[in-house]
Amino acid sequence: MLFHVRMDVQLPADLDPGERDALLAREKAYSQELQLDGRWPHLWRIAGEYANISIFDVASNDELHELLSGLPLFPHMRIHVTPLAHHPSDIHD
Amino acid sequence: MLFHVRMDVQLPADLDPGERDALLAREKAYSQELQLDGRWPHLWRIAGEYANISIFDVASNDELHELLSGLPLFPHMRIHVTPLAHHPSDIHD
Amino acid sequence: MLFHVRMDVQLPADLDPGERDALLAREKAYSQELQLDGRWPHLWRIAGEYANISIFDVASNDELHELLSGLPLFPHMRIHVTPLAHHPSDIHD
Amino acid sequence: MLFHVRMDVQLPADLDPGERDALLAREKAYSQELQLDGRWPHLWRIAGEYANISIFDVASNDELHELLSGLPLFPHMRIHVTPLAHHPSDIHD
Amino acid sequence: MLFHVRMDVQLPADLDPGERDALLAREKAYSQELQLDGRWPHLWRIAGEYANISIFDVASNDELHELLSGLPLFPHMRIHVTPLAHHPSDIHD
Amino acid sequence: MLFHVRMDVQLPADLDPGERDALLAREKAYSQELQLDGRWPHLWRIAGEYANISIFDVASNDELHELLSGLPLFPHMRIHVTPLAHHPSDIHD
Amino acid sequence: MLFHVRMDVQLPADLDPGERDALLAREKAYSQELQLDGRWPHLWRIAGEYANISIFDVASNDELHELLSGLPLFPHMRIHVTPLAHHPSDIHD
Amino acid sequence: MLFHVRMDVQLPADLDPGERDALLAREKAYSQELQLDGRWPHLWRIAGEYANISIFDVASNDELHELLSGLPLFPHMRIHVTPLAHHPSDIHD
Amino acid sequence: MLFHVRMDVQLPADLDPGERDALLAREKAYSQELQLDGRWPHLWRIAGEYANISIFDVASNDELHELLSGLPLFPHMRIHVTPLAHHPSDIHD
Amino acid sequence: MLFHVRMDVQLPADLDPGERDALLAREKAYSQELQLDGRWPHLWRIAGEYANISIFDVASNDELHELLSGLPLFPHMRIHVTPLAHHPSDIHD
Repeated sequence: MLFHVRMDVQLPADLDPGERDALLAREKAYSQELQLDGRWPHLWRIAGEYANISIFDVASNDELHELLSGLPLFPHMRIHVTPLAHHPSDIHD
Repeated sequence: MLFHVRMDVQLPADLDPGERDALLAREKAYSQELQLDGRWPHLWRIAGEYANISIFDVASNDELHELLSGLPLFPHMRIHVTPLAHHPSDIHD
Repeated sequence: MLFHVRMDVQLPADLDPGERDALLAREKAYSQELQLDGRWPHLWRIAGEYANISIFDVASNDELHELLSGLPLFPHMRIHVTPLAHHPSDIHD
Repeated sequence: MLFHVRMDVQLPADLDPGERDALLAREKAYSQELQLDGRWPHLWRIAGEYANISIFDVASNDELHELLSGLPLFPHMRIHVTPLAHHPSDIHD
Repeated sequence: MLFHVRMDVQLPADLDPGERDALLAREKAYSQELQLDGRWPHLWRIAGEYANISIFDVASNDELHELLSGLPLFPHMRIHVTPLAHHPSDIHD
Repeated sequence: MLFHVRMDVQLPADLDPGERDALLAREKAYSQELQLDGRWPHLWRIAGEYANISIFDVASNDELHELLSGLPLFPHMRIHVTPLAHHPSDIHD
Repeated sequence: MLFHVRMDVQLPADLDPGERDALLAREKAYSQELQLDGRWPHLWRIAGEYANISIFDVASNDELHELLSGLPLFPHMRIHVTPLAHHPSDIHD
Repeated sequence: MLFHVRMDVQLPADLDPGERDALLAREKAYSQELQLDGRWPHLWRIAGEYANISIFDVASNDELHELLSGLPLFPHMRIHVTPLAHHPSDIHD
Repeated sequence: MLFHVRMDVQLPADLDPGERDALLAREKAYSQELQLDGRWPHLWRIAGEYANISIFDVASNDELHELLSGLPLFPHMRIHVTPLAHHPSDIHD
Repeated sequence: MLFHVRMDVQLPADLDPGERDALLAREKAYSQELQLDGRWPHLWRIAGEYANISIFDVASNDELHELLSGLPLFPHMRIHVTPLAHHPSDIHD
């Protein structure tokens, strides 16, 4: 089941550079693990913004929330979820 | 080069049912042709709305506009385009 | 799986009163069938508005879209869906 | 009498972790007490957000405000209330 | 129990003048009946707009919706309700 | 001459509790003085929010601004004023 | 007493050209009468828009509403009023 | 003196095709005349929308309004003007 | 050439009172100098808000930006400019 | 390929003046380098605001994002990108 997710990042201005690097490294590892297991099939940067548009493929709303609220950057992001359905003109399936 | 496109459809209330069916059939054929040639790789319905979220893969802004303004439903849609870039955490090259 | 759905109704000003009554009767029957089979567990009127807030309980986004787009009033409504997850303080399992 | 309430939480970035845990524990206890006595019948997490949608069942606007302004997280939330009425298609009395 | 209600009127451009006068006369009579029985204690015009701000005093959300949806102008208005509570600095008990 | 005023309060997170209490006491005294002399005839809490809706009765825009800008909480509030006029259906002269 | 008024005009697409000219002539005459008697001291076009920004000088909110609602274009305009007060840095009085 | 202008076109759904073609031809001729005389130095289509972003170079606000309100499509466009100034980092004088 | 300018002031909460007074004194002097030389012909307080609406009379967009960006409060204000043109119903030349 | 970019700057209130000057000098140098190599052909100040409107000419969305995210002021700006296409009335090929 697919969900469209937009994430806008806003890091605190006074974040320690070392902490910041560690935080971003954890975010990257977390994200890549989910991409590899197939639950985060698409991840795009919005050109010009510190934000991304992602597609998640999960079994339920609860699983989606668990994944998103587990993001290391979760406390520093504004997230908006849009549930997606099959489009009648889609040539897949 | 990828673009995120949201399209919201608003058909005129007094559209003749026959015209409406013909219009939607042309839209479907047009869309599937672009999906087949690889320029419209993703097409999803937004659950509960007469709207879609799509990903286009084109060589330029001009090509994107030519494709979108050629949609049979173009006069009846509100369209918003967001340019996408590679995300540094994306596991696909 | 629960979804929060807000529906705002806007009937055409020139709708024939007979058609209007028939349309609303079909909407009511459709809604009550879904309430009875458990997929539309809550339906509330927003005080002062021709709008409702509903909770749907379905197996997938696709099922949700099928139910909503099948509403007799669908062409005359603006609908917004919010996916719901379990809250950690909720006393119901 | 039912009210729809959306609460968006925004904790201060520099909140002491111990204070934070104590605050969230008080919020949970407060919420569960109201759920148990029947005045907070529904509590859902919005998937992907630090926010909830709740239904309150109280005797008056004053009682609702007393309950909401007493929430331990009240100073850290943006709250919006929508009064609900019986819907004519609702199958429950 | 008090509610703050804002109503914005938008009459159809092609409304027959005779129908319009009859409609407005019914609205006025309806409004004055509710003012006289104490359930619509305040009614103000917003300067420069075809809109009003009103205070209603009713026993429940259901009663409020019954009154508002019974307004002759209801199909031609956008209405927004805000529930009011006692203010701790209010000098009236 | 009546004005509708909405005030949303946002106290600084790091306000000293003693200062806060003193500030709120001054606000209450100031508000009650204006209520008693008839220039602030209505003051309501918006249910669920740290905000109020008020009606002021003053001789001019200048007098209104003098009263509002003199509020002890003025630096911590977002205020919006709407001028009110007599409504033709109002039963009070 | 001064008020800032923004008016956005939206004429019906199917307005008869003769009626339109007569309507605009009445609007101009009405406006110039009020400018001459000093109650509409400033009237500016917003560059690029069918809209104006005006300053009115009237004795009360009621007088302002009477003037604005009497505009021949009133049914075809969206109007927003902002009450103005003396600015402490203003060099006039 | 430069101005940034965004124009969104909304043609009436029932516009006669012949009238529509004539109108668009007049718009094109008008636009190209202004481009040739240097007062409309840039004209871009917004990808995916029936809208443009333009730069105008005129001597005054009045001249700008005269040019824009003279556009054959003016009654069918929503226009927004932003005045531009020299940027201190601009390498052109 | 006239411009409509709205300025909303937001002083930092922790501004030193002495610095604040000096800053406001410089703002007042700067403003009055421009009023006296005729380039800032109108300055009004928005009733109830720490904001003003002003009319500037300058030779160009560049001059306007130079004046506004030179305001001592410029770093603490949100400013929005609207270019004004002659209105055809204006009785002044 | 052209992109319209709006950038709104918001420097931290407590930025050290020396750091601020160095940061702005780096921003200017970076911007002028891109103007000189032709990838940032237009840069305008929005009159009255600490903001600019720019046109970028790049080969791809990725190149655009690389340029924008490399701006020394990037962490202190809100940026919005609009992709531009050729306009059919544009007199330049």
